[in-house]
Amino acid sequence: MASQTSTESMDRTRTERLAIWAANLKFADLPTDVVEKTKDFFVDWLGCTIAGRYHPAVQAISKFASHMGPSGGKSEVLDGALGFTTSAAFASLVNGASSHVVEQDDLHNRSIMHPATVIFPAALAVAQDVEATGAEFIAACVVGYEVGCRVGRYLGKTHYERFHSTATSGVIGVAAATAHLLKLDAEQMLSAIGTAGTQAAGLWQFLIDATHSKQVHTGKACFDGIFAAYTARDGLLGTRDILEGPRAMGVALVPGTTNAEAIDGDLGNDYEILHSSFKWHASCRHTHPSADALLKLMKNHKLGFEDIESVVAHTYQAAINVLGMTGKGETVHQSKFSMGFVLAVVAKKGQAMITDFGEDDLEDSSLREFQQRVKMELDPEIDRAFPEKWKGTVDVRTKDGQSFTESVEFAKGDPELPLTRDEIERKVHTLAKYGGFQDTQQVQQLIERGWRLETELNLAGFVFGSPSKPRS
Amino acid sequence: MASQTSTESMDRTRTERLAIWAANLKFADLPTDVVEKTKDFFVDWLGCTIAGRYHPAVQAISKFASHMGPSGGKSEVLDGALGFTTSAAFASLVNGASSHVVEQDDLHNRSIMHPATVIFPAALAVAQDVEATGAEFIAACVVGYEVGCRVGRYLGKTHYERFHSTATSGVIGVAAATAHLLKLDAEQMLSAIGTAGTQAAGLWQFLIDATHSKQVHTGKACFDGIFAAYTARDGLLGTRDILEGPRAMGVALVPGTTNAEAIDGDLGNDYEILHSSFKWHASCRHTHPSADALLKLMKNHKLGFEDIESVVAHTYQAAINVLGMTGKGETVHQSKFSMGFVLAVVAKKGQAMITDFGEDDLEDSSLREFQQRVKMELDPEIDRAFPEKWKGTVDVRTKDGQSFTESVEFAKGDPELPLTRDEIERKVHTLAKYGGFQDTQQVQQLIERGWRLETELNLAGFVFGSPSKPRS
Repeated sequence: MASQTSTESMDRTRTERLAIWAANLKFADLPTDVVEKTKDFFVDWLGCTIAGRYHPAVQAISKFASHMGPSGGKSEVLDGALGFTTSAAFASLVNGASSHVVEQDDLHNRSIMHPATVIFPAALAVAQDVEATGAEFIAACVVGYEVGCRVGRYLGKTHYERFHSTATSGVIGVAAATAHLLKLDAEQMLSAIGTAGTQAAGLWQFLIDATHSKQVHTGKACFDGIFAAYTARDGLLGTRDILEGPRAMGVALVPGTTNAEAIDGDLGNDYEILHSSFKWHASCRHTHPSADALLKLMKNHKLGFEDIESVVAHTYQAAINVLGMTGKGETVHQSKFSMGFVLAVVAKKGQAMITDFGEDDLEDSSLREFQQRVKMELDPEIDRAFPEKWKGTVDVRTKDGQSFTESVEFAKGDPELPLTRDEIERKVHTLAKYGGFQDTQQVQQLIERGWRLETELNLAGFVFGSPSKPRS
Repeated sequence: MASQTSTESMDRTRTERLAIWAANLKFADLPTDVVEKTKDFFVDWLGCTIAGRYHPAVQAISKFASHMGPSGGKSEVLDGALGFTTSAAFASLVNGASSHVVEQDDLHNRSIMHPATVIFPAALAVAQDVEATGAEFIAACVVGYEVGCRVGRYLGKTHYERFHSTATSGVIGVAAATAHLLKLDAEQMLSAIGTAGTQAAGLWQFLIDATHSKQVHTGKACFDGIFAAYTARDGLLGTRDILEGPRAMGVALVPGTTNAEAIDGDLGNDYEILHSSFKWHASCRHTHPSADALLKLMKNHKLGFEDIESVVAHTYQAAINVLGMTGKGETVHQSKFSMGFVLAVVAKKGQAMITDFGEDDLEDSSLREFQQRVKMELDPEIDRAFPEKWKGTVDVRTKDGQSFTESVEFAKGDPELPLTRDEIERKVHTLAKYGGFQDTQQVQQLIERGWRLETELNLAGFVFGSPSKPRS
């Protein structure tokens, strides 16, 4: 499958073409902006992972890894409570769970998935297992983003109504990134993709009762994708058309229409990682366009928290579906999924950072009262633009009877409005502190190693361990 | 949740009622026929697992377990090539893959799933981890069958059209069996069920290109279910209504209607394990009713292989769907999914045992020609009775122009026509020999320990290890 003429390529499935591209991508092929953006998201991800590590779900998964995995290994678990190294599959299981907890990891808008929380933990753990260089790691992550996000785009909005796409698309991205680090050929890459896709799972039901499945989904997407790639290397054949085949994901997991063109359109010309967004606010990404519109409106009209009588947030259907599931937000995590609560927080505090959602805030009656006065409404135009664009409009009525409207076309962190490196550093320091990592200097060193990632000779020990030495 | 009045129980979901029942079942509650049947299926399963262990997919999964899991542990991998002990999750991953390879493991008719291949590998590995007694193991397996098969019945026929139910229902059965061995309470049992269900995956796409996903599905159902139960013990909250909730399995994974009553109807009065069937023929279970009808017809009318001009197999839609995916059967595994090839084998050899499907047989032109002369036809009456009954009718035209019809209401191995212990022993010896286990005496000892399973004091080392000692 490695060599091909244009005639042969006409007979291939889209998934085969994607696998060939993924197996053959080299670091040297990557445009500079792609390399730089990968490092941005990686450093951002490190902060998210450290921040989430004490969550009970992460601790339970970490105990499972200790009990079922090897004690010792090349891959680092970024877990302060039990802090250990283990095999790649288990390290990624824990780190993948950890990095999605505080709702600060990136979002790829048009696939409605969070690639960093699955691609980086898996690629880092495997890179440490094979003692890859920073450049090899970056190339593998670009492959992981590309494949995972394209699958997410293929599965589309109606899939997302039922499934946590980060897991179902992510597992395939993980398999591709891992396969790239293992230097698998295109046939093996295709097997890894097939074996990953037949494991794709993750339902939204947990949002309704504020349970811990979100951490299961991201952690297991890492484990399962790594499983797919290592077994593909060792002779396990994955099914060849797991996306478009007659009994494959498109048929079984998508109630509406799929977007076949997304699988292999424009491969190598546009990079999915350039279309991912940072999260600035520490809440569900579906609240961000409205939050930014509200902040803009309050600034433009010099309104304070106490001035506002009511807010209508005009948004898209997927936001209403997801945010409608968590009720008033009884837990800190659920409160980040309540449009009313999030808008109350930004109105009162001027921001919605990780430290702005605490147990105290849940008890704050001024926030709870404001929350009651926020409504969501479906806006057909915003809905049509979604998920290519995540737009937001808010109407505000003030206590003295005035009415204002404000819109944002992009939320802060969107590809069109990315975080600067200074902002990323500030965010990572805040997250690390939140995660109990007190040594600011060590965090700064880690960040700076991240900015020079392509010069690392060996990622073993990257986070806690010794300096970079070439693999033996 | 442990204590309840009848009023309280009215408010519970069906899944909660199932979890309460599962957490509270005791070995002492089990009727004798349930205990005996569990041992029958366990011994039958041991043969299947040994038979499949050299398959390339099993070997690849075994390598993954060696690389990512601990070297050493309490749980036995029944793998001749690499033969080792490891942690429970990895041992079950390999054994679960191995026991489904040769298509000889049991089938639970009305849920259309194969419980043994997921429940026993997981329960054995965990029983060894916690050093359970034989009686504790049996009770956990009964729980695993009950929960897994009830979920399969709930998801029903239309789920089975797209998903390999053995995996999607099986992972929940595994979680319940494991939770029972870990002595989790009803709330933790419910968490384990929720975390298992949100991992449910496994698509039929692999049947089309004869790849290895079937082994992935069963092995991973074991691993994932064990993950669900251990993490539930350690504080990870699973979603509470993973079957009937608004974003749960019934909505996301079932295109048609679900059967809610199956979740908790008649709990404790009827046992699902009594409704499971042995496989006698070594082919897809959907071929068995037709194979038995053909054997009966040939016997009654004294016909030989050479006498038959053509066969029409009247069957149900699910058989046509599954058997229609594998084409003519290019591989040994695919050939077991070809109605034409399987009927050719039984007509020529009078049986379709594991040794009757070899590479030689794929090349046998007389079998290939006979295969061409077999057709499947949908029989509306048989289809209506499925999956409660797996009936078969064949029409045969002979070369000298005669026509005959024969039907079977039950296939050999069905609950109404179970294998005798002598037949199970014969089958296990054949399977063990096929799997390269040459020491007949050791196999016989293993079988006999199986028949006395409830007297075992400690299942650690049950298969290859030392005699039974109580746990310390």
